[in-house]
Amino acid sequence: MAPSSREASISLQEQLTETVEIMQKTITRLLPETDLPEAPLFEAMRYGSLNGGKRLRPFLVIQSAKLFNVDPKRSRRVAAALEFVHCYSLMHDDLPAMDNADTRRGKPAAHKAFDEATAILAGDALLTLAFEILADSDTHEDPRVRVDLVAALAQASGGHGLCGGQMLDLIGERSSFDLGTISRLQRMKTGKLMSFACEAGAILGKAGEPQRKALLNYANDLGLAFQVTDDILDVESNVTALGKDTGKDQQAGKSTFVSTMGKEQARARAEMLAAQAKRHLAIFEGRAEMLEDLADYVLKRRA
Amino acid sequence: MAPSSREASISLQEQLTETVEIMQKTITRLLPETDLPEAPLFEAMRYGSLNGGKRLRPFLVIQSAKLFNVDPKRSRRVAAALEFVHCYSLMHDDLPAMDNADTRRGKPAAHKAFDEATAILAGDALLTLAFEILADSDTHEDPRVRVDLVAALAQASGGHGLCGGQMLDLIGERSSFDLGTISRLQRMKTGKLMSFACEAGAILGKAGEPQRKALLNYANDLGLAFQVTDDILDVESNVTALGKDTGKDQQAGKSTFVSTMGKEQARARAEMLAAQAKRHLAIFEGRAEMLEDLADYVLKRRA
Repeated sequence: MAPSSREASISLQEQLTETVEIMQKTITRLLPETDLPEAPLFEAMRYGSLNGGKRLRPFLVIQSAKLFNVDPKRSRRVAAALEFVHCYSLMHDDLPAMDNADTRRGKPAAHKAFDEATAILAGDALLTLAFEILADSDTHEDPRVRVDLVAALAQASGGHGLCGGQMLDLIGERSSFDLGTISRLQRMKTGKLMSFACEAGAILGKAGEPQRKALLNYANDLGLAFQVTDDILDVESNVTALGKDTGKDQQAGKSTFVSTMGKEQARARAEMLAAQAKRHLAIFEGRAEMLEDLADYVLKRRA
Repeated sequence: MAPSSREASISLQEQLTETVEIMQKTITRLLPETDLPEAPLFEAMRYGSLNGGKRLRPFLVIQSAKLFNVDPKRSRRVAAALEFVHCYSLMHDDLPAMDNADTRRGKPAAHKAFDEATAILAGDALLTLAFEILADSDTHEDPRVRVDLVAALAQASGGHGLCGGQMLDLIGERSSFDLGTISRLQRMKTGKLMSFACEAGAILGKAGEPQRKALLNYANDLGLAFQVTDDILDVESNVTALGKDTGKDQQAGKSTFVSTMGKEQARARAEMLAAQAKRHLAIFEGRAEMLEDLADYVLKRRA
């Protein structure tokens, strides 16, 4: 019997909370405290990755992997590696030379809590650590699985993914983009890491091509729905609710989904994308309920 | 018949020049020009990695791999990946928040030729590309070899290697270090990537443990000899010869091998290390001549 929407919603919230706790433990274990002379580097790495994130990407890794009965010890390591990449990109994006954001999740940005040099280096070290974790035999006994994870994460994070998307974002401050370019930008900056999250579950589970493809399509639509909602939140929220500087895009004159299509149409687009995302999961015949519920959650979130 | 020292010296110079040319081609192929809207990112990646470096690390990869008859197509890819990591670290180290160096190899540093944000992102993307290249099946057909390369490069480049060494270096501007800490700093900042270079040849060639160990020990001593010589050059050279800002360490009041042990003792130490490095190569029974000659070259270089 399918649970009612109310039950499903409680259960998603529980799973999200559990993921936050699991990630806190996993990251702490992977980044132990140290009294080496270069300790500030590791403190900044911990600061930048143990700062109260929602852990949506780890949630996607863990839930996707669950579909293929992957040992949670493995999916948690991959989830942490991905979160390190996400967190390094936030640390670098917040720098004065980039988005110049003083706060992140309600706390001083890493370059404010430490200094710019330490924030740059800690970001570099987190990115590097992500690949070290994926390549370690604790992540999977099969080297082919490990190297597939490394390749997929590198493709999602480099010049044709995360870094390229941030470059486009910076260029967008000086020129206005059409809807196609905004979509491409967000696909690179946000979508590709979300796609990796879902693909990682399939890689860990040695899933067949149709299931891997379904998860990728789901993640693609979910990532875009997430970003459209983010643009709406940016114009609606204030710093207290969102925990970071808001209205920044507007101030910077950036092209966003909202500035291009208006808030109402943007909301309609996000709803369409979330519905489409859920349809890709039909192949799992109801077993991907958490991922389905997440698509609804992404629309409703206030922060 | 062993070639005379004069012949060997010519031959090393030829090999170094050839490596420079090979790397220029390999890097250009791995980083093609693009007309995508985010092109400045890729231009900065090319600028930072096609800027006339000596390619000592690639030389070490290629020569070590040759000892095990590795297909040069493979060793060149690994050499380029390693050089990308080296070049990203230079781009980030030169930033105003770090060493604040305006020139690099006689040309404007990347953040001067582009801007700070682009230099940060291009560095991030080069680091990521290094792992993408190693994980690609063109690098080696055996996934175990590829994942070993990823693990070794990540360990050499992260918080316990390159990034940690640079953190220590920054801390060294505010406090004075003893000889042990300076050695550890340089081992992390320079030595570990040199060790990876030699180890990579052994990994690609599926070498036995004694040969892998010999190459690691060689690289360890060579890297330290290289760094001690670098400190001597820093106080002796001027910006024209070295192509980068010099006397910076002195100005910054940093502890170096020269400031700690004096120039003459530093030179004697470098010579001792180079001789020791060569002795580790005895296991190759004269076939590692290029690597032996490189140890002498490192002492004599003027830039």
